[in-house]
Amino acid sequence: MPPHKPRPSGEDRIIARYFRPLATHPGAFRLTDDAAALNPPPGSDLVLTVDAIVGGVHFLPDDPSDAVAKKALRVNLSDLAAKGAKPVGFLLMLALPKDTSEGWIAGFTRGLAADARTYACPLLGGDSVRTPGPATISITAFGTVPKGTMVHRAGARPGDRVLVSGTIGDGALGLVLHRPGGVDGWSLERAQQKVLVGRYLLPQPRGAIAEALRRHASAAMDVSDGLVGDLAKLCAASGVSADVDIERVPLSPAGRRVVAGAPEMIELVLTGGDDYEIVCAIPGKQLVAFRAAAAKARVPVAEIGVITKGRSPPRFLDRTGKPMLFKTTSFSHF
Amino acid sequence: MPPHKPRPSGEDRIIARYFRPLATHPGAFRLTDDAAALNPPPGSDLVLTVDAIVGGVHFLPDDPSDAVAKKALRVNLSDLAAKGAKPVGFLLMLALPKDTSEGWIAGFTRGLAADARTYACPLLGGDSVRTPGPATISITAFGTVPKGTMVHRAGARPGDRVLVSGTIGDGALGLVLHRPGGVDGWSLERAQQKVLVGRYLLPQPRGAIAEALRRHASAAMDVSDGLVGDLAKLCAASGVSADVDIERVPLSPAGRRVVAGAPEMIELVLTGGDDYEIVCAIPGKQLVAFRAAAAKARVPVAEIGVITKGRSPPRFLDRTGKPMLFKTTSFSHF
Repeated sequence: MPPHKPRPSGEDRIIARYFRPLATHPGAFRLTDDAAALNPPPGSDLVLTVDAIVGGVHFLPDDPSDAVAKKALRVNLSDLAAKGAKPVGFLLMLALPKDTSEGWIAGFTRGLAADARTYACPLLGGDSVRTPGPATISITAFGTVPKGTMVHRAGARPGDRVLVSGTIGDGALGLVLHRPGGVDGWSLERAQQKVLVGRYLLPQPRGAIAEALRRHASAAMDVSDGLVGDLAKLCAASGVSADVDIERVPLSPAGRRVVAGAPEMIELVLTGGDDYEIVCAIPGKQLVAFRAAAAKARVPVAEIGVITKGRSPPRFLDRTGKPMLFKTTSFSHF
Repeated sequence: MPPHKPRPSGEDRIIARYFRPLATHPGAFRLTDDAAALNPPPGSDLVLTVDAIVGGVHFLPDDPSDAVAKKALRVNLSDLAAKGAKPVGFLLMLALPKDTSEGWIAGFTRGLAADARTYACPLLGGDSVRTPGPATISITAFGTVPKGTMVHRAGARPGDRVLVSGTIGDGALGLVLHRPGGVDGWSLERAQQKVLVGRYLLPQPRGAIAEALRRHASAAMDVSDGLVGDLAKLCAASGVSADVDIERVPLSPAGRRVVAGAPEMIELVLTGGDDYEIVCAIPGKQLVAFRAAAAKARVPVAEIGVITKGRSPPRFLDRTGKPMLFKTTSFSHF
């Protein structure tokens, strides 16, 4: 070894060992370049989305790092799904405290690799930086749609039905259970508690209905900041309002049990966020076809209301037809 | 106002007021959607890069927020320039402490807007999150090159000349001066100190020679982590080595004066980073054309060495031809 030989930096070694195996896309150049290259197929648009998660805000410092990695990728895949896009790959920005162990990184990349495979969304490149703050993971995800067919927030029209995928509120309830010093478990069985916490830790992006949304939805978005606030955003972008029957909002068995015992929890269910389900507007004529496509994709979808004229925020109506009042409508980052 | 009317969240208001004016790209959908869309021209590749800066690491907490914004964008534009790409737009991830003032955000977006115009690189979309840590800004920038013509790190061949743009070491010296409790100013005049600090605060991306690099360089990258370490990366990716004459490395008048008074500072100049200049390999036959193109673009370029056979890291030779030994070769993030 010549005298001027520099030691390979820790960063180079970590990238080679833990991150390079994820960079299976040819445009990633095996992470040996400063940039990646993408060449979307002719006739397609590239759909771009960025979402970050921060330790102590979007995940807890002691959460297993493989789950943190999966959550970071999945919140972005959830956005791509809502836009009707098929994943292509992602860029990773990883800001880590100086004392981050190699074990944490090993777990993180193991989780990320598993999801990159599951969702056919390989690593394209990234940046790693040191932070005096908590671990922060920002992912930019890329997908494709046939040119001009991205599903927007805008587009819902009066008369369209409002549908949501899966069940609502589990992630928000799961966070309450998962937080140190959380509640007593609402007298749920251990298995049901685990289901809720699992929904908080590991979103299930609804890529399986991306194509159905593209073909049938007039508007869609993913529910990440709470159904009430997110549907309000969809309606505002579309210049419409909506009426939702609270009783038709699909809850999981665990969620139903929590609300049965503590009816005030319905507010957290509807506004807490971390759902990573899809809320969409489906024109009446498309309803049968959309339901059939969702069933074929094995994604449960429920009709919860209807798009209405006007510019007021959506009304969430109780069984007596009275609009519910919410203390906060949505998680705000400022 | 109906009783269920939610207050517009602070986030929505801040986005509408400060960020929407930057989102001039049609694919940004005025920031009213969850994703952006890009449709690169037929026959082109999209070049993608992500770079983050963290308060207390890449900028100081009291740095003016307009300069922080510009730095965050410019470090990415520097990567695009090195790859020969023309900017298209960018996505922004902004993690801010809860106590961030609206004035800070106003300054940040003012700086970002100015640079988005200057570099024809509009905002495409983004994500804002709260952090218990320092302000963290991650930008994903997009550029285009004619298909297959991105300039790589790999590609340098023995005999190619090594050139750098501008002057080296100013940013690293500027950081020393800028840091609270820094040095006494190396007996530099105030104006020269300001030049160095300015180079630290505000990189000047070399987009003006992107096209020249694309036409003439066999390999290129931007110098962000120090010339010694970054040239080593270029050589490693290319499977070559290099000999550099330290005396030919271009220093600014201020940098020359520092090294004249404190010769040991040459190590910081060569390894400190924050240069955001370009280091490239130019085949001998392309040298005249590259120099002419750079001159036309008014970007000074200096030949500092030659690519050699072998796999050892580049040698930095002093005036006696002796390879210099470096304590650290590059800023490592782990």
